[in-house]
Amino acid sequence: MKKPARSPLAPKKFPLIAPVPGVRLLTAAAGIRYVGRTDLLVATMPATTTVGGAFTLSKAASAPVLWCRKALKDGRARVLVANSGNSNTFTGKRGETVVSATVAAARAHTECRVSDVFIASTGVIGEPLDHRRITAAFPGLFALAKPHSWRDAAEAIMTTDTYPKAAGASATIGGARVSIAGIAKGSGMIAPNMATMLAFVFTDAAIPVRVLQQLVSEFTDRSFNAITVDSDTSTSDTVLVFATGCADHPRVTGPHADLLKDFRAKLEGVMRDLAHQIVRDGEGAQKFIAITVSGARDDASARRIGMTVANSPLVKTAIAGGDPNWGRVVAAVGKAGEPANVGKLSIGMGGMPIARRGEIVDGYSDARIARYLRGREVAIDVDVAVGRGRATVWTCDLTHGYIDINASYKT
Amino acid sequence: MKKPARSPLAPKKFPLIAPVPGVRLLTAAAGIRYVGRTDLLVATMPATTTVGGAFTLSKAASAPVLWCRKALKDGRARVLVANSGNSNTFTGKRGETVVSATVAAARAHTECRVSDVFIASTGVIGEPLDHRRITAAFPGLFALAKPHSWRDAAEAIMTTDTYPKAAGASATIGGARVSIAGIAKGSGMIAPNMATMLAFVFTDAAIPVRVLQQLVSEFTDRSFNAITVDSDTSTSDTVLVFATGCADHPRVTGPHADLLKDFRAKLEGVMRDLAHQIVRDGEGAQKFIAITVSGARDDASARRIGMTVANSPLVKTAIAGGDPNWGRVVAAVGKAGEPANVGKLSIGMGGMPIARRGEIVDGYSDARIARYLRGREVAIDVDVAVGRGRATVWTCDLTHGYIDINASYKT
Repeated sequence: MKKPARSPLAPKKFPLIAPVPGVRLLTAAAGIRYVGRTDLLVATMPATTTVGGAFTLSKAASAPVLWCRKALKDGRARVLVANSGNSNTFTGKRGETVVSATVAAARAHTECRVSDVFIASTGVIGEPLDHRRITAAFPGLFALAKPHSWRDAAEAIMTTDTYPKAAGASATIGGARVSIAGIAKGSGMIAPNMATMLAFVFTDAAIPVRVLQQLVSEFTDRSFNAITVDSDTSTSDTVLVFATGCADHPRVTGPHADLLKDFRAKLEGVMRDLAHQIVRDGEGAQKFIAITVSGARDDASARRIGMTVANSPLVKTAIAGGDPNWGRVVAAVGKAGEPANVGKLSIGMGGMPIARRGEIVDGYSDARIARYLRGREVAIDVDVAVGRGRATVWTCDLTHGYIDINASYKT
Repeated sequence: MKKPARSPLAPKKFPLIAPVPGVRLLTAAAGIRYVGRTDLLVATMPATTTVGGAFTLSKAASAPVLWCRKALKDGRARVLVANSGNSNTFTGKRGETVVSATVAAARAHTECRVSDVFIASTGVIGEPLDHRRITAAFPGLFALAKPHSWRDAAEAIMTTDTYPKAAGASATIGGARVSIAGIAKGSGMIAPNMATMLAFVFTDAAIPVRVLQQLVSEFTDRSFNAITVDSDTSTSDTVLVFATGCADHPRVTGPHADLLKDFRAKLEGVMRDLAHQIVRDGEGAQKFIAITVSGARDDASARRIGMTVANSPLVKTAIAGGDPNWGRVVAAVGKAGEPANVGKLSIGMGGMPIARRGEIVDGYSDARIARYLRGREVAIDVDVAVGRGRATVWTCDLTHGYIDINASYKT
């Protein structure tokens, strides 16, 4: 397959991101599947590190996801090992052996407990992964004198991604400055309850385990669980947020403590930025689409309606073609099965009203909407007129590029 | 938009179908949207006619669907009016007026009750439909000396279809011969709980209302509700089965009466044939895919798993490209959320085992599956190893053609 060009929706350049105290990034070309590029990332962290996570809801979750769910129970972490090229999914007992051998090898280089090692794999499903590719790279990798950059780390976990994804911020907790930095991968098999996406976020803040897990769950719902490229939930979706505790700030007591206000906003911002970057690299994406549903029974219902619109191939192809076929939005709302008063439905695009209270507005112009749809960014607003629930979800259009990429991924 | 070529999966030719006693088919070019083709079908039937139906579950059901649901209550029918080009959906009060004006005009030509008139519309959503186009055509239409053929009828209801769809059979009820004939349209917005599809089946058998409705519900589940092209449920899906009662045979007492054995098989066969023809005309379809799921908790669960596989863009694009990426089938089973023992999952294609009891089989060859996928017909078998539920669903691949057709439908 010809390598697809960088997405036209990609950020202009890789962001400038400060190191996060305590986090050491190491990458290697382990030759797992790809040739001439890195495919292995190791991040090491100090013994003070807490971790929160969220994973795919797939019944066919990968061996690494099953492992991480267990390891997450005590909320402590020292090492993250992430590889691209093979997802170690549907690999049976052999898959579990790969995980335990990787964990054992990582522990030989870092004094830590078994449950301190987190593993994430992404790539082809159903093929045995030879763990020796990974473990053989460890001695050289852990011995590296100079750690790698965020950019190196983001590149090592790419699969069909057309650009490396990272985001950073700095926040204040009780007057002390802390750093937040994250990387992510993903561009297909992206759907609610996550996607073939990995996202790792690091901060030097000291966040108690329970607080961190609450923040991760809450922000994942509004970021990684509010995006879709193609409705295909992956077996390997993993979000991990590590807090090294290297920063010196007053003790954090709860997820809604006043002290955390700025940190909450910045962490959610980094996670949302990474989620948007995944959509912007959606396979074949030419347009970035934000769908805001209001007037739903509750926020969760609004998100389900939004996701149904976002997953409709007919809506996505219409937008790809710049076709003002807004009736397909109506059809998608109808198929969501959520409470909606179609007789009072309102729809708009780019702030321009199209339908109000169940009927097309006077003076509606197909040409005007078609002109708007020529842009790279499309906003769709739907009011389903039954309540106060509200949510925004993000997706991309469905184009020939998606078919090109996915009709020949394996061969 | 350039008219797409006839689907490569289309039947070689239009089938030979006998007239059904009592059914008179009339078509006209009413100029609703299309130029130079028919777009209006009227079928008239005698006062003895019973009818059974099934409709979309969309919350944004069209005005004609809302009307048919009401009209179906007493199970009697005299007239069917079907148009293409405009679906009369999301048209508010104006849409209801179109229906009532059409019913009134039809009654002026056929002595019958209001609830004897059935209406079905398909085409663009959200645009007002001018009912005068339809009613102005009625005088000429009802006065036609020579009724039209099944082919004419099937052509009048086409939208993006690349070929007219019909199927026929003859059956025996208690030694008497009866005819069954059906037409259908649909090629996009096709999904479980129906599709942008209309299907009308006619028989001269005398089937009591309740029996007919039971047959329609049962067979729709295994035919029209077991197909998907693009996962987009339509607002206009309508299946109507009319029984004119013109044939002379012993009285039918129940849906499972011995007497009905042959008729049941033939009616289900016609409905399945029409359902398959819709998939074979799936927008952009190059391959016909049958997915059989066994070992599920029950048949309904098996169908939901099958539909999730059938709706996976990644599975559909892989098959389009002849790519043996069967791991995507595993991922789709995982995302279905239905009971499944992935550790014991078995998968095969074209009768060749790929995975058994959770792992790839020894000697599995990508090349062999890739060779199989070059054909036009693809069979996928999945055993989820939790029970005895079983179902087959049908879909097509996802190709550039789908994008071509749907990026410019309206404009």
